[in-house]
Amino acid sequence: MDETQTAEANVPRTERGRKTLRKLLDAAREEFGENGFHDASISAITRRAKVALGTFYTYYPSKDAIFRALVSDMSEAVKQAARHSITNDMDAWSTERAALQAFLEFAGKHKEVYRIIDEAEFVAPDSYRGHYESIADRIAGRLGKAAEAGEMRDDIGETEAWAVMGMNVFLGLRYAIWATENDPDAGVLAARANRLLERGLRPVSSGDGGAV
Amino acid sequence: MDETQTAEANVPRTERGRKTLRKLLDAAREEFGENGFHDASISAITRRAKVALGTFYTYYPSKDAIFRALVSDMSEAVKQAARHSITNDMDAWSTERAALQAFLEFAGKHKEVYRIIDEAEFVAPDSYRGHYESIADRIAGRLGKAAEAGEMRDDIGETEAWAVMGMNVFLGLRYAIWATENDPDAGVLAARANRLLERGLRPVSSGDGGAV
Repeated sequence: MDETQTAEANVPRTERGRKTLRKLLDAAREEFGENGFHDASISAITRRAKVALGTFYTYYPSKDAIFRALVSDMSEAVKQAARHSITNDMDAWSTERAALQAFLEFAGKHKEVYRIIDEAEFVAPDSYRGHYESIADRIAGRLGKAAEAGEMRDDIGETEAWAVMGMNVFLGLRYAIWATENDPDAGVLAARANRLLERGLRPVSSGDGGAV
Repeated sequence: MDETQTAEANVPRTERGRKTLRKLLDAAREEFGENGFHDASISAITRRAKVALGTFYTYYPSKDAIFRALVSDMSEAVKQAARHSITNDMDAWSTERAALQAFLEFAGKHKEVYRIIDEAEFVAPDSYRGHYESIADRIAGRLGKAAEAGEMRDDIGETEAWAVMGMNVFLGLRYAIWATENDPDAGVLAARANRLLERGLRPVSSGDGGAV
């Protein structure tokens, strides 16, 4: 057993250790997603993971610690979903559209992501804030590159990054978490949001069509 | 004492009753805002309100009931703040800008609004969803009127309303709740968001300037 206990998980040295860690995080996602932080228990997590209770403590010192690790893990999964949808040959608009579509599809498949991230506001406020700040940074990076390449206005920055993130989070809330019958699919939604981002809500006028 | 006890507050028949109800809701806002739902107590609310414990129960049957009433009350306050900033002579863009600026100023003064609304996701999910659905409806109504008047595209609807709401909520989170030194003020932020809404993030090109 590793003797250095930190707030975060010990990084396993073996493949087997990494698999156990993955099983614990997946079980934690189910348990926190279904029952919320307060009603979730370490023993329920280890039962779901089919891992001995003692083994849990070689990875995490507490329920709080695995919750924080789970928020980081899900935050990373959200970013990966977006990143994997983007290819180098995409222009700035296709990039934002693909990132949003991937996020909507991810949230549709992993509806618990909202509940877990949102509960972090109360259980692990630093993790909650860190999640959004790091996503905003990533979006700001993409927008900044697009502005440098002349694909977007050169006066955009952090404010626009938070606006884009908010748009994406709330489209996910409405169409992935609170989905109703006959909702548009993720591709259509991402295209609509993309149109707003690209040209705004002004009426299409004669001088507007092929302007860029 | 009124004999009809419902989940919502009994509507007071007298001015004095209305004042007591207001005192209880204001005290609940402080108590839930500072301590969160689980650690908040009815006796702490009545102490803050300087109202007898027995009186509380003539208005609300439980902590849960006053929490739900508070979410409705704050939801209404958010809407009022936006509504009061709008005048009939404003065009669609000035309307959205004024509504966002008013919201940012409201959230800056009442930072507890985020914590209380966000905690409703866990404590009173129907109130949480109702809050956002009713604000989205209101925004969709404004955008729809603007489209009819030819001020906005005629193909916008619910999706764009949720996008605008998400933008506004996350700008409030970043700049009202997580405000940092040297942040732009609410007027500047609302103008930036408005620019995104009106013309998107495309570079300003020759054919683009006075197109509408």
